[in-house]
Amino acid sequence: MTYKAPIKDMLFDMEHLAQIEQVAQIPGFEDAGLETAQAVLEECAKLCEGVVAPLNVPGDLNPSSFKDGVVTTTPGFADAFKQYAEGGWQGLQHPADFGGQGLPKTIGAACIEMLNSANLSFALCPLLTDGAIEALLTAGSDELKSTYLEKLVTGEWTGTMNLTEPQAGSDLALVRTRAEPQGDGSYKVFGTKIFITYGEHDMADNIVHLVLARVAGAPEGVKGISLFVVPKFLVNQDGSLGKRNDVHCVSIEHKMGIKASPTAVLQFGDNGEAIGYLVGEENRGLEYMFIMMNAARYAVGLQGLAVAERAYQHAVAYAKERVQSRPVDGSVKASATIIHHPDVRRMLMTMRASNEGCRAMATAAAAAYDAAHHHPDAEVRQANQTFYEFMVPLVKGYSTEMSLEVTSLGVQVHGGMGFIEETGAAQYYRDAKILTIYEGTTAIQANDLVGRKTARDGGQTAKAIAAQIEKTEATLIASGTDTAKAVARNLAQARQAFVQVVDFIVAKAKADPNAAYAGSVPYLMLTGNLVAGWQLGRSVLAAQELLAKGQDTAFMQAKLATAQFYAEHILTRVPGQADAVINGATSVMALPMDLF
Amino acid sequence: MTYKAPIKDMLFDMEHLAQIEQVAQIPGFEDAGLETAQAVLEECAKLCEGVVAPLNVPGDLNPSSFKDGVVTTTPGFADAFKQYAEGGWQGLQHPADFGGQGLPKTIGAACIEMLNSANLSFALCPLLTDGAIEALLTAGSDELKSTYLEKLVTGEWTGTMNLTEPQAGSDLALVRTRAEPQGDGSYKVFGTKIFITYGEHDMADNIVHLVLARVAGAPEGVKGISLFVVPKFLVNQDGSLGKRNDVHCVSIEHKMGIKASPTAVLQFGDNGEAIGYLVGEENRGLEYMFIMMNAARYAVGLQGLAVAERAYQHAVAYAKERVQSRPVDGSVKASATIIHHPDVRRMLMTMRASNEGCRAMATAAAAAYDAAHHHPDAEVRQANQTFYEFMVPLVKGYSTEMSLEVTSLGVQVHGGMGFIEETGAAQYYRDAKILTIYEGTTAIQANDLVGRKTARDGGQTAKAIAAQIEKTEATLIASGTDTAKAVARNLAQARQAFVQVVDFIVAKAKADPNAAYAGSVPYLMLTGNLVAGWQLGRSVLAAQELLAKGQDTAFMQAKLATAQFYAEHILTRVPGQADAVINGATSVMALPMDLF
Repeated sequence: MTYKAPIKDMLFDMEHLAQIEQVAQIPGFEDAGLETAQAVLEECAKLCEGVVAPLNVPGDLNPSSFKDGVVTTTPGFADAFKQYAEGGWQGLQHPADFGGQGLPKTIGAACIEMLNSANLSFALCPLLTDGAIEALLTAGSDELKSTYLEKLVTGEWTGTMNLTEPQAGSDLALVRTRAEPQGDGSYKVFGTKIFITYGEHDMADNIVHLVLARVAGAPEGVKGISLFVVPKFLVNQDGSLGKRNDVHCVSIEHKMGIKASPTAVLQFGDNGEAIGYLVGEENRGLEYMFIMMNAARYAVGLQGLAVAERAYQHAVAYAKERVQSRPVDGSVKASATIIHHPDVRRMLMTMRASNEGCRAMATAAAAAYDAAHHHPDAEVRQANQTFYEFMVPLVKGYSTEMSLEVTSLGVQVHGGMGFIEETGAAQYYRDAKILTIYEGTTAIQANDLVGRKTARDGGQTAKAIAAQIEKTEATLIASGTDTAKAVARNLAQARQAFVQVVDFIVAKAKADPNAAYAGSVPYLMLTGNLVAGWQLGRSVLAAQELLAKGQDTAFMQAKLATAQFYAEHILTRVPGQADAVINGATSVMALPMDLF
Repeated sequence: MTYKAPIKDMLFDMEHLAQIEQVAQIPGFEDAGLETAQAVLEECAKLCEGVVAPLNVPGDLNPSSFKDGVVTTTPGFADAFKQYAEGGWQGLQHPADFGGQGLPKTIGAACIEMLNSANLSFALCPLLTDGAIEALLTAGSDELKSTYLEKLVTGEWTGTMNLTEPQAGSDLALVRTRAEPQGDGSYKVFGTKIFITYGEHDMADNIVHLVLARVAGAPEGVKGISLFVVPKFLVNQDGSLGKRNDVHCVSIEHKMGIKASPTAVLQFGDNGEAIGYLVGEENRGLEYMFIMMNAARYAVGLQGLAVAERAYQHAVAYAKERVQSRPVDGSVKASATIIHHPDVRRMLMTMRASNEGCRAMATAAAAAYDAAHHHPDAEVRQANQTFYEFMVPLVKGYSTEMSLEVTSLGVQVHGGMGFIEETGAAQYYRDAKILTIYEGTTAIQANDLVGRKTARDGGQTAKAIAAQIEKTEATLIASGTDTAKAVARNLAQARQAFVQVVDFIVAKAKADPNAAYAGSVPYLMLTGNLVAGWQLGRSVLAAQELLAKGQDTAFMQAKLATAQFYAEHILTRVPGQADAVINGATSVMALPMDLF
């Protein structure tokens, strides 16, 4: 199954939702207008479609393997990664000072989506490297930066995030890996880390592990965690590779999906010689790790969208080809392709609408990120930062949860063939299931949304978004078309339910935390649903205008139809979810633990 | 992970929802009261828990394999099947005349659930054999019955259903396998069948294939399909096995789940010698096949419940053991088992409530089946038959769709460990995905519900059920407890939405079939949701009465808490689904095919 990057939809979102021409007015992004975006996307699509996508099935059939401490990736991966690095793709969003291209996230996000549609397992390596780069850029000393950054940005080396230990998953307070200062500025690290994505592989010369550990005597809990760089090979003064460091892969996991991506168990300091270098200050590791995590969370949200897009394309191709049964409306007098059947259409439209909604949301969020980090005006930066931070748990949580639904529908469209591995639809279903788990489960995202993003400011950010949505509704109604009115009706219904839930969450967060957190995931889902639906509402306004000008008629009509479907079939879930959050809060905890 | 059969809940449903003591008043079922049920369930649980469940993981790791036409099942399967057969379990619901025990479906359904919870792959063999028995009982000649039935009922031989061909899946009009009369009453069969569950295996001496084929000169489409028995080994006059018949397995599929269950491609008559025997009359094959299908559809619904129950038990065990993070309510001042966390509770309650709802619905349906087939009063039989037929697409469609959600939550509760195959949670997720596909996809069930079960009688059966639900609501409100009132509120809201949808479906089925069928699956889901919620509402009434008598307090309290959770968190989905069906009908087909 070939993958075709949805460049047109990406550019539409960049132009009309992210307003990329405004992003291009931010100092440093002068060259990053729509034209650049189009050129970059087309180039990226060539690599993703031609080189990376064909490795997706081979990666599933012939995953990374482990022997005697060595991980061998799927044949073709190392070469594809070389092409990726040489094309400058790893450095797309990173500063030119370290060899990057310094493009905005507004453009970079689309490239990340493509790479992940092409091959989720492959794309994880650059994804983690991006996180390592972010952490070093923000908190690394000049020495660390000069030693590691350029090699990471150019893709000569790769990066990892080492958080999890057997007893410490979501709960990082339980991290036990320890670091002992050596007096020369370096540390010796001891411990075991699990679930380390690309913790060992054969695609780059060196691997830069970013590792959470406790310095002896540090406070208990998360306030005593520090962040260290522990390279696979030590780096000589001249930048050449030195001694093999004492960090070793002892096994990789046997997983349901993303099989080509090696998930390593790493032992640090089994021979007492794992040399690490402190990033920033002692005991501020969690804070720095969150920099990586936030970049990674947004990117994992894109993974959800990406695998869902691939599943959609696969299902559409099958539905247009497979002949089975007569249409119920009598439009064909013999067995017809299954795309004629209303329920197949409903499934494909659900997939398509969810994807366009998630893409719209992610693109709008990316533009906020760019303004938050680079806009000259501090107030603009702050406003965008607040918006972006509200969006991260939605992009991560909602898009990945929807990817489970979309990839499941993708299998379903294929009928019995979907369950046969050779068809390919099952792989997306298996691969996607990790996305609601790693980089913070959906519940962790939802707790973030409830606590830090909603309750902390008394619902102010949430209500400000609701007010913006209300304005979009008004504009839609004023435009007078049936589609716009249908979208506005469902947006209003969902927005009103959202505001009620926000009030409930704010009221309960401290007074009755069980009640507030019992509804955290439904709150996240209804908020993501509303925000994605809002962005599609904005898309309707843009598409109507362009349609009036006769521009790209087919695309604009499809956009309108898809947005209306979203409003009528997906946004309609919101009031019921709100009902459950508000009226069902106590029944979540009502059954005593021992009666389960 | 050990499986523990939920006998108490099964007996509660039998006693209070299926009113088994009334079933036991039907002639022939005199011995099938609650006491018998309990004894049978306890005995069945021993086999399922002790023998069959431990083979579930081995079946996944070491699936059925194919070599030179021979299928070798997972080590242990053949022996377990022998124990199953020798225990008389295959004949549990079948007539004593042919070596069965003649117990009602009300009891048999619980045993089928257990066997499937223990091992979905294993249980498929008896499930298909049940279907073959039903078809022969209904339409087979005395000779066919005397040759095949006792061997099938005792589990010495097994049965299969041969419908699907590469070009004919849901669309049986496209069946091409042909049968040529030989003049001696037998036929020669030619063709290829795919997706034949247990089409070849080493667990029994003979395999009785029931095969759809066309007799030369038969009308086109489904009206020209006949049903044949094609045994793997021909049977001599004295009942001993004769010559190997010309039906051969040429390969088995590589599937995402239920890997231990061999899914065969069968070639009939490659050497021109596949002898078949007509079942019933020529060209009535589809009608007979529907007998098997309807038995099998109900049973596949139980498979959904079964795998979901197993996933629930697995997740509860992990949630009670895994320590991670402090509870948000401050009830524990250190990291606690994750069952303390509201979102983990929400997930476990969703799983539990869905399972109890689906079990309640299936048990009530089973009692209707028993009355429909065996009650002395023709009117009672007819009323129960109508109710049962309405329930089959719900039991099949709703319970299996919910099993996708429940098994996904099961993985999610495990966090990262859930994605690692050794944990076991992933297998349920992979296994479950076939359930919404085989024996008629969810869309096929939904079309049945819309067309034959709702539109055909102008919504009469549907409205009669709504009227019964309204009575349950009134009784709940009259009981005066908070739980009963909460359940009644949500039942009323869902029931009103349901009635609106029924009116919509009836109005559109002929006038605008695309609009009616565009909402078919949401209609099925909301109806299943409502009916399961209704049965839990009836459970509340029973549990409250027993609680007042001080009977089994903990169980009754758990039943009340679970029913309330269902009403507040699952039933609340119904109004939004109804909104989508009614107001979103046209947007399903709005996007022209070529714009996908």
